[in-house]
Amino acid sequence: MKLWSKPILGLLKLTGLLAALALAVPSYGQDAAPAVEAVAEAAATATEEAPAFASYEAFTESEGFALFTVNNLWILIAAALVFLMHLGFATVESGLTQSKNTVNILFKNLAIVCIGILGYAFWGFNAMYPGEVGTDWNGYFALGSWFGVDNEDVAMVTSAYNPSYTWWTDFIFQAMFAATAATIVSGAVAERIKLGSFLIYSLILVTFIYPLTGSWKWGTGFLDAMGFYDFAGSTLVHAFGGFAALAAVLVLGPRKGKYVDGKVRPILGHSMPLAMIGVMLLWLGWYGFNGGSVLSADPRGVSYVFVTTTLAAAAGSVTAMLVSWILLKKPDLSMALNGVLAGLVGITAGADVVGVFSSLLIGVIAGALVVFSIFFFEKVKVDDPVGAISVHGVCGVWGTVAVGLFSGDHSFVTQVIGCLAIVATAFVASFVLASAVKAVMGLRVSAEEEIEGLDIGEHGNEAYPDFTAAHK
Amino acid sequence: MKLWSKPILGLLKLTGLLAALALAVPSYGQDAAPAVEAVAEAAATATEEAPAFASYEAFTESEGFALFTVNNLWILIAAALVFLMHLGFATVESGLTQSKNTVNILFKNLAIVCIGILGYAFWGFNAMYPGEVGTDWNGYFALGSWFGVDNEDVAMVTSAYNPSYTWWTDFIFQAMFAATAATIVSGAVAERIKLGSFLIYSLILVTFIYPLTGSWKWGTGFLDAMGFYDFAGSTLVHAFGGFAALAAVLVLGPRKGKYVDGKVRPILGHSMPLAMIGVMLLWLGWYGFNGGSVLSADPRGVSYVFVTTTLAAAAGSVTAMLVSWILLKKPDLSMALNGVLAGLVGITAGADVVGVFSSLLIGVIAGALVVFSIFFFEKVKVDDPVGAISVHGVCGVWGTVAVGLFSGDHSFVTQVIGCLAIVATAFVASFVLASAVKAVMGLRVSAEEEIEGLDIGEHGNEAYPDFTAAHK
Amino acid sequence: MKLWSKPILGLLKLTGLLAALALAVPSYGQDAAPAVEAVAEAAATATEEAPAFASYEAFTESEGFALFTVNNLWILIAAALVFLMHLGFATVESGLTQSKNTVNILFKNLAIVCIGILGYAFWGFNAMYPGEVGTDWNGYFALGSWFGVDNEDVAMVTSAYNPSYTWWTDFIFQAMFAATAATIVSGAVAERIKLGSFLIYSLILVTFIYPLTGSWKWGTGFLDAMGFYDFAGSTLVHAFGGFAALAAVLVLGPRKGKYVDGKVRPILGHSMPLAMIGVMLLWLGWYGFNGGSVLSADPRGVSYVFVTTTLAAAAGSVTAMLVSWILLKKPDLSMALNGVLAGLVGITAGADVVGVFSSLLIGVIAGALVVFSIFFFEKVKVDDPVGAISVHGVCGVWGTVAVGLFSGDHSFVTQVIGCLAIVATAFVASFVLASAVKAVMGLRVSAEEEIEGLDIGEHGNEAYPDFTAAHK
Repeated sequence: MKLWSKPILGLLKLTGLLAALALAVPSYGQDAAPAVEAVAEAAATATEEAPAFASYEAFTESEGFALFTVNNLWILIAAALVFLMHLGFATVESGLTQSKNTVNILFKNLAIVCIGILGYAFWGFNAMYPGEVGTDWNGYFALGSWFGVDNEDVAMVTSAYNPSYTWWTDFIFQAMFAATAATIVSGAVAERIKLGSFLIYSLILVTFIYPLTGSWKWGTGFLDAMGFYDFAGSTLVHAFGGFAALAAVLVLGPRKGKYVDGKVRPILGHSMPLAMIGVMLLWLGWYGFNGGSVLSADPRGVSYVFVTTTLAAAAGSVTAMLVSWILLKKPDLSMALNGVLAGLVGITAGADVVGVFSSLLIGVIAGALVVFSIFFFEKVKVDDPVGAISVHGVCGVWGTVAVGLFSGDHSFVTQVIGCLAIVATAFVASFVLASAVKAVMGLRVSAEEEIEGLDIGEHGNEAYPDFTAAHK
Repeated sequence: MKLWSKPILGLLKLTGLLAALALAVPSYGQDAAPAVEAVAEAAATATEEAPAFASYEAFTESEGFALFTVNNLWILIAAALVFLMHLGFATVESGLTQSKNTVNILFKNLAIVCIGILGYAFWGFNAMYPGEVGTDWNGYFALGSWFGVDNEDVAMVTSAYNPSYTWWTDFIFQAMFAATAATIVSGAVAERIKLGSFLIYSLILVTFIYPLTGSWKWGTGFLDAMGFYDFAGSTLVHAFGGFAALAAVLVLGPRKGKYVDGKVRPILGHSMPLAMIGVMLLWLGWYGFNGGSVLSADPRGVSYVFVTTTLAAAAGSVTAMLVSWILLKKPDLSMALNGVLAGLVGITAGADVVGVFSSLLIGVIAGALVVFSIFFFEKVKVDDPVGAISVHGVCGVWGTVAVGLFSGDHSFVTQVIGCLAIVATAFVASFVLASAVKAVMGLRVSAEEEIEGLDIGEHGNEAYPDFTAAHK
Repeated sequence: MKLWSKPILGLLKLTGLLAALALAVPSYGQDAAPAVEAVAEAAATATEEAPAFASYEAFTESEGFALFTVNNLWILIAAALVFLMHLGFATVESGLTQSKNTVNILFKNLAIVCIGILGYAFWGFNAMYPGEVGTDWNGYFALGSWFGVDNEDVAMVTSAYNPSYTWWTDFIFQAMFAATAATIVSGAVAERIKLGSFLIYSLILVTFIYPLTGSWKWGTGFLDAMGFYDFAGSTLVHAFGGFAALAAVLVLGPRKGKYVDGKVRPILGHSMPLAMIGVMLLWLGWYGFNGGSVLSADPRGVSYVFVTTTLAAAAGSVTAMLVSWILLKKPDLSMALNGVLAGLVGITAGADVVGVFSSLLIGVIAGALVVFSIFFFEKVKVDDPVGAISVHGVCGVWGTVAVGLFSGDHSFVTQVIGCLAIVATAFVASFVLASAVKAVMGLRVSAEEEIEGLDIGEHGNEAYPDFTAAHK
């Protein structure tokens, strides 16, 4: 326990410091965001007033149908963009790790999307969105069930259910989100975790734990009632995944050869083009991740979120370039790539409620934070091959508290409490889960398999047989 | 003829068995799909009633223009997604084959998109959609012509032509579909076919044969009149391509070194990341392929199709993972990737008319089927480097008959008849075409060129000169 | 000066010849484009009539809100597609160059997107769109400023500002465009330019020069007043970038080993799959680049532009395949890929105003032109590793003058004047800028670094350490 108390403490200190710094520049943060959130709430209220139509056909002939259609279409396209993020994760993770483990990483990432969607269909969706507080659920815990519904023809596809999209659109958008949480862990535990063990760990994490913590905010649970704000998931998705990853890495231990005789040895990724493809696809996908979280195609809301998301990503990358250039003497591509992701994770909690200039600042701080955090975790021997804990965990926390700093409407204290509640749950659940899997079936491949590579060991395959065969 | 009678017979038996199996689980298949098809038909009927506007400007000021605009936009975006599938095919095919043939495969795939679009513009589009049965055409065969039209300003771009999109949208969406059929063949004949011969074969197949069989259903031809149903092309595109590929492979023969002394020798693909990129892009593109086939942005229809498509893909992959894990003792990435495609091809015929749970089952069966089918074709010496015959041919047939099994509104017998009619035509046409090309200009590269690689032989180039040069 | 006068002269002659040729086939070019432009102008006029709403909420309840929402959504999606073009540039440029410079190219391309967006936010956007001529600006030069605005709530997000999209949508779409101009240069100067020097050069080019020339047409400046037409930027973006690249290459000089003892030595790219991925992503992105330039989701306009764009790309590639097949005796993949881009660049100026058949012809000529141009520049010792000067510069000029040839509504002479004005400015500005950077901090890496590779020299990294390490 002593080992992991260090990073947590250090992380808290670092965050405190940066929060102080951010508070010191309120004049830059004062530019107002448009009342995007207010509009969304107005739309939500409209739900109750919306008439239930006699049939879907009657709805299609109603006045609001064209607007409903474009709103719904945007959420579907956003879902497709979030789907593409899984290819982004697969390529960035395989690019930043060794070629002898590439098949394994690709397999894991493919399996997680599929398992995540199925788990979400059979349990997660209804566990995360259990209905209205007070009537249907208690705000803390709900049981899941198969997402399919009976009375779909009227209630579920007209504006009586939702002002902006159908039940199926709702499911598919949320299902694409769900799997990302487990995918974040995948990168941190790469190059030494047993395939079967990881798949069972992921299945449980994404099916049962992610919807649980998600329901606290997006399912109108107790954190939502408190006023906690997390627009598209800096905490609910990214910090959740990042801290679940931290716990899994602590149970798993570092890769062989990473720490030799008290020294840190770099283990290089095998393909920077793959890493670049991954990050750019993730950036693209984020337009769906954040843009779709407006939950309609509202022109002001979506376009504003596109702008804040873009500025944070660009600022994050430029900052990470400069900071790593200063610290390492040379501009580092993997840091620049992680800077993009840091900015994106950072802006995710408040993309609709912070000012344009604040979004830049959030990106700048995230871009610096991710470089220091990666060095920090490396130093305290938390071996995270792709920097997932720093990118998603640390910058996810940063983005969430930044809402308390840069948006006038949200309490800093509530943001900290909400973030801590979810991050702590993710950490503990992942720790228990990984430990249980370790005890039952083992978590780590043998030392021989790790040295030979998981592609041969777990899959009996190679990613690049033409080239590696030629080497022998 | 004896050689190829085996796979066909075996295939029919396999399908019969699985159909029996599927019929045995009607209780799972009973969950009803929404009346998506009914709405589409209602919309189609509305065409006749729709007023023709005096001018396009008058149309833009009419009440229904906003809805028309969003419908039209979705079909255009769907066309762009289907375009991206060509990059998916190019990467998955080059990833699953040897690095010495990569330039050749990329060239073929690029050429097919371009040739396919041009052939469709000059002949295919009008041959496939020749107008109304009885008045303009006979339901069996129509001549093609240049797709451009004269009286475009009023008739072709207002709702008088179509309730949901313009003439140009119609063309571009269908043109992107057309080229996929020929691309499917490309993977099966890879690593030994002559470039020039293949391009001529493809040009004829995509320009003349695909629109012919396509017109029978989507051009309101005789199969449509019979009640045959194929939502987005399990038969019209995928089984067409798959069985054309089977015929071409039978004419072409297996690769050198695949069958040595009566034994099957594996020839490994050269880049699993490329294969993964390809399959994920295909999955993404399928949201346009199936989602666009709703032919409007109807919220219920498109979102429902997104859900069934996603569940079938996920179920197909997980099933292929498990089946190959059991059979091969190790989880196989290329089987998992083919499982995704199998599920997608399988759901394509009925994505809008089968229940949600049925879509899962269709994916599960497709995912198992593709693994057995790949082993089967390998055993009977039909050498298909990427599994295209199994993925597109076998699972395309499965998806089409599955509509007869899982959707209450369509006859199993009609589905079998329609599927057989198109598949047999594709097979025979491809067989004749490939044999004719073989007789006239040769179909296969020399043995020396095949061993050296087609990149050097056909293109005088290498895909990775930095790495292969270093090997020498 | 003698050196670069040759290519310019040759280029002008070549263009003249081809223009004569194009004029000789007026019968093919007579098919009329729909009055897309007229509609756009009508919409633009509507701006003045559009009522300013009391509040955004009032706007959302107005009659035209659904149409505004779909128009706005399309421009946002188009912006995301243009963003993806940066991944296309990164992959095609790294694929067509040597593996020892891959990290450097990826870093440059990532940095340019980020820097370009930030520069455009702080200066470029307002410098390029300074308001109404006569009142706010003189039509020749405007100062830039931070793009954020104060009175955003009403004026900037309702149809009082624009009939089709919000202020933020406008910014993000234009910002994605801006960075492409500098990215074009990146490919031409690859494999020998100093990283820091290039970043400073790019920052100034994209922030100050691109908005200046852009304002002359799209900012309603003097070229716009003259009747110059450039729909989506054959000149404003592509020829600008291509001729800026030419100047930079002339200052920089060819790569070591390209011209040895008076002979041209080929320096091969290292990954054709990367090049293919890049070109296909660029093609996809072009649907946003051209399709979004309709500046609304107008069904007729956008679908028409999709068709002309697609036909030009396909025709360009097929022509480049055939021409290179004849000239080189073997079909060349990199020429086929450049043929796609040539067709796309060529159609960009007139995608909405030329006939469908004309779009085919424009693509055919661009596809031939790019092959000859690449050979020409290679011969006159202008070393452009990826063919950017030919693709973007030469074909950009071709596309712009083609509007004068194929669209009845635009003057050939005005097109030539407008194109020359911008191309000359880009060339001179880039020449001065590159020379200044060269004088102050040096433009070129040392000979040793160039031979060893810029990845080690500039970044201390390698793109493929697993494979290159094995080679040693």
